[in-house]
Amino acid sequence: MDCTFIIGGAKSGKSRYALSIGSKIKDKKKIFIATAQPIDPEMEEKIKKHREERGREWITIEEPLNISERIKELSDKDVLILIDCLTLWVNNLLIYNLDPRKEIEDLIKCLSSFEGMIIVVSNEVGMGIVPQDELTRRYRDLLGYLNQEVAHLSNKVIFMIAGIPIQIK
Amino acid sequence: MDCTFIIGGAKSGKSRYALSIGSKIKDKKKIFIATAQPIDPEMEEKIKKHREERGREWITIEEPLNISERIKELSDKDVLILIDCLTLWVNNLLIYNLDPRKEIEDLIKCLSSFEGMIIVVSNEVGMGIVPQDELTRRYRDLLGYLNQEVAHLSNKVIFMIAGIPIQIK
Amino acid sequence: MDCTFIIGGAKSGKSRYALSIGSKIKDKKKIFIATAQPIDPEMEEKIKKHREERGREWITIEEPLNISERIKELSDKDVLILIDCLTLWVNNLLIYNLDPRKEIEDLIKCLSSFEGMIIVVSNEVGMGIVPQDELTRRYRDLLGYLNQEVAHLSNKVIFMIAGIPIQIK
Repeated sequence: MDCTFIIGGAKSGKSRYALSIGSKIKDKKKIFIATAQPIDPEMEEKIKKHREERGREWITIEEPLNISERIKELSDKDVLILIDCLTLWVNNLLIYNLDPRKEIEDLIKCLSSFEGMIIVVSNEVGMGIVPQDELTRRYRDLLGYLNQEVAHLSNKVIFMIAGIPIQIK
Repeated sequence: MDCTFIIGGAKSGKSRYALSIGSKIKDKKKIFIATAQPIDPEMEEKIKKHREERGREWITIEEPLNISERIKELSDKDVLILIDCLTLWVNNLLIYNLDPRKEIEDLIKCLSSFEGMIIVVSNEVGMGIVPQDELTRRYRDLLGYLNQEVAHLSNKVIFMIAGIPIQIK
Repeated sequence: MDCTFIIGGAKSGKSRYALSIGSKIKDKKKIFIATAQPIDPEMEEKIKKHREERGREWITIEEPLNISERIKELSDKDVLILIDCLTLWVNNLLIYNLDPRKEIEDLIKCLSSFEGMIIVVSNEVGMGIVPQDELTRRYRDLLGYLNQEVAHLSNKVIFMIAGIPIQIK
């Protein structure tokens, strides 16, 4: 397993940077796992735009929930997976009322035993004011916990600020 | 005075890292000053869980407001104090309608003249959208000001991202 | 063009640091472009306090919208401009219903062709929870995009945390 974790704020250039490092990798089958769902026109437009930007180099799989399954199925030393992003995945877990702790544990296991290369994108969402409602706090805590776990298993961690990648591990 | 300041977002691993560096210190009496108050079941559970995680190595003092007094009383070269966290302390100052500027000045003085070791934990809360209501903005500005002052007097400052400590001073 | 970009959270010491590096520059005419508008007493007091802190070394220009024009007019190798801050400028663009993409493009062009020295201050606002309302998300995305562009053209980028400057470019 070779895992690069890219974390940063909204519009900090995470996805673009993830794609740029993915594009430099040669001789691997490149799979882009998109967790976003086109639930409204705003999201639909974003998804479409991103897919066009990626071009034909990447095979896109839209998978809002079962990313662990997909990672398991795709495990092969000649495969590069880019998961974009954990932020929406945790959001989807809560919307679909799944057990997020269990899902997170499964994901960590599948990432750890993956035989190829992985690039994972996630957001830092814990540096603003404490959210008022309990569900949002729960979401923030779950994502923060997951980000720590993924950073821990990764061999490289990049913190993005204003489009600038800072290697912190 | 030997002060380490640990700042980061929610669920970035600040407390765990603070305890891990505290545990490596030998031959000191270890005092944990908790500023959290068990005002609701969610908070109560968090406090209880954290106390269990710390174990018997630490003596816990629950002090939501008068941390300056406690620090003054405990000043001794054989004492290690861990303050977790300033975020809730500033919140408590506002709830109890104390003069936050005066309290912050007092704290800075007491930290600066403390004879033992100190580890201080706080949150970065200023990297989200500007809060709508004035009280929240005031809170954010006070905490930001305090964080700057504590970082200034500290000989070591650690920025936590996704469980990864980054020494910035 | 010699551009230093200073980005950080609210109350992280950005403006103070920007002024401190500006003050070290000798033999230049120093222009402070303030984008803040005194729309309420809170803001008015902040603006007044900041102006006093700067002293007579700086000529202050209050310009909530047309900063590109001003930069163009002032372009000279003996001029140092400090723009504080982009955060409020993008806010003003939306309030006055201008085309923010076009304005941002103009600004990037004017900054890139400026003949003197520039220091630009902006906020990181994308590390909190995703805002509920669309306008705020749009604001956050525009500012994030602008921050990336300015960081890209700058020869020096400083990330501020708790008053500590971290050079990331």
